[in-house]
Amino acid sequence: MGLDEATVKPHERLSAALATELSQVNSLIRTRMASEHAPRIPEVTAHLVEAGGKRLRPMLTLAAARICGYDGPYHIHLAATVEFIHTATLLHDDVVDESGQRRGRPTANLLWDNKSSILVGDYLFSRSFQLMVETGSLRVLDILANASATIAEGEVLQLTAAQDLRTDEAIYLQVVRGKTAALFSAATEVGGVIAGAPDPVTKALFDYGDSLGICFQIVDDLLDYWGSDATGKNIGDDFRERKLTLPVIKAVAKADSEERAFWERTIEKGNQRDGDLEHALDLLAKHGALEATRADALNWAAKAKSALEALPNDPIRDMLSDIADYVVARVN
Amino acid sequence: MGLDEATVKPHERLSAALATELSQVNSLIRTRMASEHAPRIPEVTAHLVEAGGKRLRPMLTLAAARICGYDGPYHIHLAATVEFIHTATLLHDDVVDESGQRRGRPTANLLWDNKSSILVGDYLFSRSFQLMVETGSLRVLDILANASATIAEGEVLQLTAAQDLRTDEAIYLQVVRGKTAALFSAATEVGGVIAGAPDPVTKALFDYGDSLGICFQIVDDLLDYWGSDATGKNIGDDFRERKLTLPVIKAVAKADSEERAFWERTIEKGNQRDGDLEHALDLLAKHGALEATRADALNWAAKAKSALEALPNDPIRDMLSDIADYVVARVN
Repeated sequence: MGLDEATVKPHERLSAALATELSQVNSLIRTRMASEHAPRIPEVTAHLVEAGGKRLRPMLTLAAARICGYDGPYHIHLAATVEFIHTATLLHDDVVDESGQRRGRPTANLLWDNKSSILVGDYLFSRSFQLMVETGSLRVLDILANASATIAEGEVLQLTAAQDLRTDEAIYLQVVRGKTAALFSAATEVGGVIAGAPDPVTKALFDYGDSLGICFQIVDDLLDYWGSDATGKNIGDDFRERKLTLPVIKAVAKADSEERAFWERTIEKGNQRDGDLEHALDLLAKHGALEATRADALNWAAKAKSALEALPNDPIRDMLSDIADYVVARVN
Repeated sequence: MGLDEATVKPHERLSAALATELSQVNSLIRTRMASEHAPRIPEVTAHLVEAGGKRLRPMLTLAAARICGYDGPYHIHLAATVEFIHTATLLHDDVVDESGQRRGRPTANLLWDNKSSILVGDYLFSRSFQLMVETGSLRVLDILANASATIAEGEVLQLTAAQDLRTDEAIYLQVVRGKTAALFSAATEVGGVIAGAPDPVTKALFDYGDSLGICFQIVDDLLDYWGSDATGKNIGDDFRERKLTLPVIKAVAKADSEERAFWERTIEKGNQRDGDLEHALDLLAKHGALEATRADALNWAAKAKSALEALPNDPIRDMLSDIADYVVARVN
């Protein structure tokens, strides 16, 4: 490929290995995001779909299908499906979170309006549904219908759990499975299912996606306090937005009564003052919450890699393993 | 049934004839709107689902299946699917329209917040998708996936078309097919498809639902100016919200330059003053726009009834015919 394995990031190597199929996916996405009657739809969609996301989720589907020796056309449909579902949830998330920036650019709700983001999200979700129906696989439809319900349920759960100090690690995991891991695990599983892979293989693909997705979200939440990655996020965004994530959950679990009062005031009541973020960072350090969160992320990465052992030996499989390492290596 | 055909409304007679199946639908809806993890979901859903809607759309599915002699269990799933899709679109519509009232009660976005309405809508749409997968019919999935895309496309089109005086009757029809008729026609068609009805019958069912849905929406838009129905709407809501509907489109088409300036100011620019609604009503009267709109509605009702002629003779079929008459009879 002409790519130096030592310096090129593993998802870039995967992208190069899947280049032909990825370009088919991109072309299908462009065709299907069109709308004969409502030009607002492709405008809004293009803003997000062509913003240079890594296409990690569709790559997972293509990779799974390739490892399982699939030679039909429908992994392309499924990869586009997964990207459409992802884009639809981003559009709705940005309205729900009242976000103004995504991937370093203004969000669609800011450039157009909330109405467009809501309705174009609904449209993309419907289009994803049409794409999966075209595969003719009821099992694929079943997996993606369940994933969609888990995603929406996780998002609703987050609404009530994010500012409630009673939220523990189990509830956090539930939210993360919904908002992130459900689409990762569906993406990998359907790649195996469409290839007709045996149950232990599709199960392993599900487990890889599930663990990778959880790892990915934990790292995302950790970087919000750790801040060493070029995420475009500012340190403490989640704190300012009063989002209870794993590092804070760990610190709250070890809090004395004075510390608990601090978290109640800043997260539950949202009454924040100058110096609060610095104090929060001190408390996270005092209880080793960031290191403990990083250890959890490493565990999930190890789980993801161990799931891969049930899959046929394949260079793509090794790239998936490297991706699991790379996700945690973002925290450095 | 003990119901007096002369005074009981036709949808009430249909509801009585389908009472057993409707109660199965209601019970399935209650089961499936539950969420193990996020109690906010059934709270929001119950507010809308149990607000005493007429369940017209699920009844159409049950009626179609009955007329086609279906004796399996899946018309119940499909009727619940249709009601979930309808409820999901209402939740999103109320956010998009910033509505505070629906069926005479405060909307979910007012009682909870926009976030809950968006995400619970997404959840219900996913649940509807799970229900249809359970039927095991790819043709049903195809019809409902296409209907969902048409609904969302119609809603987006409405965003840009509603305040644009260039919107003509063809674009209005496109919007109405999306926002209303697509779910009516899918509801009737899938009832026939699940029963294994022959193509001319499922085509006739589609046509009935399509024409009835268009008729229904035209009458709704007409009543906003006509005001003789107990809709709970105030005369002129659409005018105040700057929604270009069929009566105004007809008046704009016949407007002289002074009248056109009036519509530009009030609808396009949204610059409204005391007395504008009265003037708008005068212009609608001057050009016979309300009578012409009512004539269109009567035509669609006649089309709906004529589609029914391709269906097997059945008392339920006659009730569907009466419903088409009744929809227009609301304008009196």
